[in-house]
Amino acid sequence: MRIVRSLSGMQSLSSRWGGRSVGFVPTMGALHEGHLSLIRRARRENRIVVVSVFVNPSQFGPREDFSKYPRPFAADTRLARLAGADVLFAPSAAALYPPGFQTWVDVSSLSQPLCGRFRPGHFRGVATVVLKLLNLVRPSRAYFGEKDFQQWRVVRRLASDLNLPVRIVACPIRRADDGVALSSRNVYLSPAQRFQAARMARALRMAAGLIKSRGSVSVALRNVKRVLRSIPDCRIDYVEVADPETLAPVSVVKRKAVILAAVRIGPVRLIDNRLVTVGR
Amino acid sequence: MRIVRSLSGMQSLSSRWGGRSVGFVPTMGALHEGHLSLIRRARRENRIVVVSVFVNPSQFGPREDFSKYPRPFAADTRLARLAGADVLFAPSAAALYPPGFQTWVDVSSLSQPLCGRFRPGHFRGVATVVLKLLNLVRPSRAYFGEKDFQQWRVVRRLASDLNLPVRIVACPIRRADDGVALSSRNVYLSPAQRFQAARMARALRMAAGLIKSRGSVSVALRNVKRVLRSIPDCRIDYVEVADPETLAPVSVVKRKAVILAAVRIGPVRLIDNRLVTVGR
Repeated sequence: MRIVRSLSGMQSLSSRWGGRSVGFVPTMGALHEGHLSLIRRARRENRIVVVSVFVNPSQFGPREDFSKYPRPFAADTRLARLAGADVLFAPSAAALYPPGFQTWVDVSSLSQPLCGRFRPGHFRGVATVVLKLLNLVRPSRAYFGEKDFQQWRVVRRLASDLNLPVRIVACPIRRADDGVALSSRNVYLSPAQRFQAARMARALRMAAGLIKSRGSVSVALRNVKRVLRSIPDCRIDYVEVADPETLAPVSVVKRKAVILAAVRIGPVRLIDNRLVTVGR
Repeated sequence: MRIVRSLSGMQSLSSRWGGRSVGFVPTMGALHEGHLSLIRRARRENRIVVVSVFVNPSQFGPREDFSKYPRPFAADTRLARLAGADVLFAPSAAALYPPGFQTWVDVSSLSQPLCGRFRPGHFRGVATVVLKLLNLVRPSRAYFGEKDFQQWRVVRRLASDLNLPVRIVACPIRRADDGVALSSRNVYLSPAQRFQAARMARALRMAAGLIKSRGSVSVALRNVKRVLRSIPDCRIDYVEVADPETLAPVSVVKRKAVILAAVRIGPVRLIDNRLVTVGR
């Protein structure tokens, strides 16, 4: 596996892909089984696999955990190699955001609700860095996890609206045995907080079941909120049932819906979601 | 010369460029000698030449001349072919801006001054459509005229900030015998208005000479404004001397500056500029 740090090194590689299929997995590092499942899928579906590791400053707010975000680069290198990456692209923030940088990409409606309300500018940072990385790596397919549901929808819209020659592939959420969705931030949960995170995951699963069996959005939301409010040291950012395409809130589920939650448990902001298909 | 109207047709062509050099000239049609000089240069420098004709609605304001913008498609086809184009790409607005379209690109600082003050949203529309066209055509080089000086700087910044694998090439302003910069909108000038447009062009050239010989920005600006104010039916949007890199106004010219003007003469908004290099 080749480690590439400079933009020119990456551009020189990608200018020589020719007609070969290239799978790309953009990450912020601190790789876990969720990332690895993306890399393995990219490995199965492409001739060349590129993984990027870049903790993108422009998607963190001023009071968020950019400086504390975990950066275990040696472990990431080993894991990416074992999962089948050919290239690990790890650019610097100084190279991606040089002095005078001023170009930003907004996916307007999809960036507004849910996490957009609590993290202003977050999806602008995500959309901009994803576009930059796609231009540098020039993949045929790019892989994103469904845990970051809104991010996936923003990126898919970006690719379609900007006519990017890439297929955006979404992969299912990977969960630990206790049901908690894998996240690089989970390492900061204490055992007691981890227990509460598992309660949130169970509550979301139950709510999805309620929507599916009874079509009842309000009962499902009430149940999840009751569980979350009983968790000590837990702040709810949002719990919502939304249309999976537009992310607009829905009160009656016709065919598909997604229930999404973002909470802060102690020092950690956790997000999770469950997709629901009604009537089959 | 092949005429391509669908996005999928263009994508299918561009996915097969392989290693061949591709020169791209994006236009809004109504081709004149300025456009043709870009196409001929692209012809000299590339194996394949693509010209696009698209009157982009998103760069026109609600009270601007979108519906009246000239669209002589048959003549454009003939001129593009004679100048050496291999492909004429003429997509529809419905294809480039489908329902649900919501992704916009902002080149923030460079879009603010000059025309940005008088045409809010204009450069957002330009940046977005240029990025879309570049993604569809996937050229090695894209050619822009220096008449649209601010547009050129916005596009160059966009390409650099977003790490696009394309070289942005700027070509000198082409002028008619009376000194007026060629523009598709000139056809709407009456003979009397055309005479006044030539006075503006001369005034800018004289001002550039004054800056070069005497370094005096304020005297140069005063002279141009005096000429423009004497033109009947003329409204000045701006006359400014700016740093060619940042477009920030300058009062003392160290090495390079650009004097830019935008005026409305009768029904037509005209822009023009002169680059000045001091001390050689």
